[in-house]
Amino acid sequence: MRFSFSIVALVLEVITIVLFGIFVEYDNSDDSRILYPFFQDVHVMIFVGFGFLMTFLKKYGFSSVGINMLIAAFGLQWGTLMQGFWHSKGGKIHVDVKSIINADFSTATALISFGAVLGKTSPAQMLIMTILEVTIFACNEHLVTEILQATDVGASMTIHAFGAYFGLAVTLVLYRPGLKNKHENEESTYDSDMFAMIGTLFLWLFWPSFNSAIASESRYQIKAIVNTYYSLAACTVVTFALSSLVDQRGKFSMVLIQNATLAGGVAVGTCADLLIHPFGAMCIGGIAGIISVLGFHFLTPFLASKLNIQDTCGVHNLHGLPGILGGIAGIVVTAIKEEDRQGVLFTPGMQAAALGSTIGIALVGGALTGQYEVYPWRTSKNNA
Amino acid sequence: MRFSFSIVALVLEVITIVLFGIFVEYDNSDDSRILYPFFQDVHVMIFVGFGFLMTFLKKYGFSSVGINMLIAAFGLQWGTLMQGFWHSKGGKIHVDVKSIINADFSTATALISFGAVLGKTSPAQMLIMTILEVTIFACNEHLVTEILQATDVGASMTIHAFGAYFGLAVTLVLYRPGLKNKHENEESTYDSDMFAMIGTLFLWLFWPSFNSAIASESRYQIKAIVNTYYSLAACTVVTFALSSLVDQRGKFSMVLIQNATLAGGVAVGTCADLLIHPFGAMCIGGIAGIISVLGFHFLTPFLASKLNIQDTCGVHNLHGLPGILGGIAGIVVTAIKEEDRQGVLFTPGMQAAALGSTIGIALVGGALTGQYEVYPWRTSKNNA
Amino acid sequence: MRFSFSIVALVLEVITIVLFGIFVEYDNSDDSRILYPFFQDVHVMIFVGFGFLMTFLKKYGFSSVGINMLIAAFGLQWGTLMQGFWHSKGGKIHVDVKSIINADFSTATALISFGAVLGKTSPAQMLIMTILEVTIFACNEHLVTEILQATDVGASMTIHAFGAYFGLAVTLVLYRPGLKNKHENEESTYDSDMFAMIGTLFLWLFWPSFNSAIASESRYQIKAIVNTYYSLAACTVVTFALSSLVDQRGKFSMVLIQNATLAGGVAVGTCADLLIHPFGAMCIGGIAGIISVLGFHFLTPFLASKLNIQDTCGVHNLHGLPGILGGIAGIVVTAIKEEDRQGVLFTPGMQAAALGSTIGIALVGGALTGQYEVYPWRTSKNNA
Repeated sequence: MRFSFSIVALVLEVITIVLFGIFVEYDNSDDSRILYPFFQDVHVMIFVGFGFLMTFLKKYGFSSVGINMLIAAFGLQWGTLMQGFWHSKGGKIHVDVKSIINADFSTATALISFGAVLGKTSPAQMLIMTILEVTIFACNEHLVTEILQATDVGASMTIHAFGAYFGLAVTLVLYRPGLKNKHENEESTYDSDMFAMIGTLFLWLFWPSFNSAIASESRYQIKAIVNTYYSLAACTVVTFALSSLVDQRGKFSMVLIQNATLAGGVAVGTCADLLIHPFGAMCIGGIAGIISVLGFHFLTPFLASKLNIQDTCGVHNLHGLPGILGGIAGIVVTAIKEEDRQGVLFTPGMQAAALGSTIGIALVGGALTGQYEVYPWRTSKNNA
Repeated sequence: MRFSFSIVALVLEVITIVLFGIFVEYDNSDDSRILYPFFQDVHVMIFVGFGFLMTFLKKYGFSSVGINMLIAAFGLQWGTLMQGFWHSKGGKIHVDVKSIINADFSTATALISFGAVLGKTSPAQMLIMTILEVTIFACNEHLVTEILQATDVGASMTIHAFGAYFGLAVTLVLYRPGLKNKHENEESTYDSDMFAMIGTLFLWLFWPSFNSAIASESRYQIKAIVNTYYSLAACTVVTFALSSLVDQRGKFSMVLIQNATLAGGVAVGTCADLLIHPFGAMCIGGIAGIISVLGFHFLTPFLASKLNIQDTCGVHNLHGLPGILGGIAGIVVTAIKEEDRQGVLFTPGMQAAALGSTIGIALVGGALTGQYEVYPWRTSKNNA
Repeated sequence: MRFSFSIVALVLEVITIVLFGIFVEYDNSDDSRILYPFFQDVHVMIFVGFGFLMTFLKKYGFSSVGINMLIAAFGLQWGTLMQGFWHSKGGKIHVDVKSIINADFSTATALISFGAVLGKTSPAQMLIMTILEVTIFACNEHLVTEILQATDVGASMTIHAFGAYFGLAVTLVLYRPGLKNKHENEESTYDSDMFAMIGTLFLWLFWPSFNSAIASESRYQIKAIVNTYYSLAACTVVTFALSSLVDQRGKFSMVLIQNATLAGGVAVGTCADLLIHPFGAMCIGGIAGIISVLGFHFLTPFLASKLNIQDTCGVHNLHGLPGILGGIAGIVVTAIKEEDRQGVLFTPGMQAAALGSTIGIALVGGALTGQYEVYPWRTSKNNA
């Protein structure tokens, strides 16, 4: 058993390298140098942002930032292959700066799910989950953007809601009563909270790049940047206000500052590059802050005690609910005002179909993955 | 009283969103994608740089990085409106990447002042101070750049000196004898000093972007980058040398390394895009290091004990004195060599007027703001 | 003795400023604004990456990040002059964004060597070592790229192997038996390991910029980005697998995660912009991970106990061995497939000559430098 992780990781890496040798070629796009700063911002979000955000639990600091790095490093390779298969030309996958942005994106789903199951799975299980989740993500993304032709430039639905509900389904299946007593592991300290703020801030700061990186044209990219910037700012002020409001002594809660301030970036994602105006973006951001704070304060304790869903890092409140809000905002915006991108007209019906299919596929995919994960876990438990 | 912060924050945010709905429109500038990496660097400075720089006080770690985030998130919205009113076209404020850089800049003044009053004000008071300071800053900036037509590309005067003297005036008015005994709160620990170095380094590294972001042409932007790069390097070596020199055992002082190394970025700001040559930039940087170290070592203790000015983070030595040095350097450089930008000829007289008016407006504005702030503070004290 | 550092630093800084006044001019290149984001990434690697990577030793946290800043700030000025002399036109050194990237690069050699001697030298000695090493580096780089006309775009040989073997030669000469007992200083804590991960991640994330920043054309730059991205990803998965494999309880070792995950960036440097395909890059990265883990696990203890080479931060395993691997990869790739850049054809013979001369010059230069450094050290020891 001691070598199981090493064997799984080495076998998967060798298979991946061989597949790269067969399928992957360079591509040359004119945009690559202009897009490169966007890529670097997203790259920092994936490794520093997600990694450090989860360090708030003293007990899991190393796991968070270390396993986050492992999942992301493997996931971006697997994501290159899975997304590439849907866009291959002549049997070859062509990679440039835009495709490594997308590869980073695909790992984000697995990292979000990791936040829900942190402390309950082994590194080997995480690698298996990453493979399954990235594969299912690539299929769902193809469904949403190519078949349904819905818009989701900042991936509120296809990454954030998908990753959250996939992870929640996994953690529900993994539930065992014994885990309930592990509350002492779920505590933060002064320094672990400071490390988590590093994660929060780098996510917060670079979110405009996340939401605009793959916009189809320069002018839409600028709109996505501006909208995300103001959505996050409004969300942050609202989060501070509500954090003080729901606290008995009027104090700020670190976990809310670390997480709910980011909900505005998630929620504005779907319609970030549409003409919603900074005003519209700020409304979305403010509502996202309200939903996220209420989720952390009321819903998470309820889910844990009544439904046995233990969401370690509260990803439901940061990615799940704001992701759904983003999907709904997309429906509303396309209903109010017709917009098209490169000849494709977005309709509220297709946006709703995209939201529904994403959540359905995430829940089913997560439940099946959790079923698969739970097997070795119980075995090792029985042996102990 | 418990809900006062939440009410103030929510009311201000709602007003701001409404004003955005009425006045703010998208703009499309060709430069936006090229400027975006500059924006991101400035963005990191504002939230990570300023936020973590103030974490060196163990007791105020959360306050520093948290309230810094709150002030900046609100200030950038308010700054968009205040700066926008001076540049509005047809009653509308147009936002693009250049204007969100300027919005970030405007919050820097409030964050610098925050460094002077850290530990003495409540979050609600900070929001009020942010509104007043950003408003007065936008007026003074209009005076300096449009009416006096002075140059201040890196904002040595309009941001750094302004923010420092505004904050010092506030802290002087807020002074109460009882605060003197709070020295145990003003201590650093090993880890808090390491967190502060994160702030220092991200400020130091991205300062070339701060000083060059709004330069009028590409070639002047490159000069501002190069000048700031070498000014900071010279300042850093001088700071290490003097830090060891003024210490009784020849050791380096963390507070000097964290702060005085940055004075070169402040001081070279006003004339960063002028033809001062790297040699001139290094002279300015070296002098800035000397002034800043001497300020921390001799002036701050004097101000605190004799004049009752308690400058929590030493912003006078990092932003105040080097900001004045930058203003003086601007006078000297424009006196030696005529330079113009886009048809405007810079003169030493106008540079001196800009420096004088900036400090005067900052001191008066800060004193009035402090007077306003002190009222609820004393009330709550009397109640206790 | 107490003022020796201050005097050395001030004298060196004054000399440097005077030399800048005589020799350094602005340059205007069209590429500067496009290259600026690459510069900023490299800049973060030098100051945050190298600085925090070495903070894993609790005892040396301040020294690491502080002296790192001092060395880099001085080294980049000296490097500008030394590299500039080889490329001067009309007796003048012209600086733009590309030359400040190169100035940052030249300091990297001294920072790598610093990792080998950390805890054994004084700040004044480090400044002297920086002057000598940067000077010798600039000569060797001229030899490799201009005279031998070898390729080394990511500087596997000229920076990484050079810096490592230079530092190892210094530490061998500095060896004294008493240092062996200082093992209690070479320990990490939870928080110091977390700070080190900040260094690791910013190096890891921005390594594609390091390897591509000075590529001759845009299309080669994109290839260097993509190759480095996949090399690091493969290296990381292999490192995690082997880290668990060599540990008796199958746990991950923080020191391996912090260091060996970066070996893929070092090793792919020499041929990063050649047509090695992502497949080739991943093979190089995987092998680099294997070599680096084995180096940390078996070679470092052997070198320390048998050869009296105490490599404080293990730079031999992160920069030395992977740097040689990079040099060998360059020989193999140019032997398999002819490639040229701007009319220069690369040959395996010249690549081998470049690797050999680099290591030879580094060892001799480091030994002479160490001899020079050891003198004041022993004196002060005898006095004590």
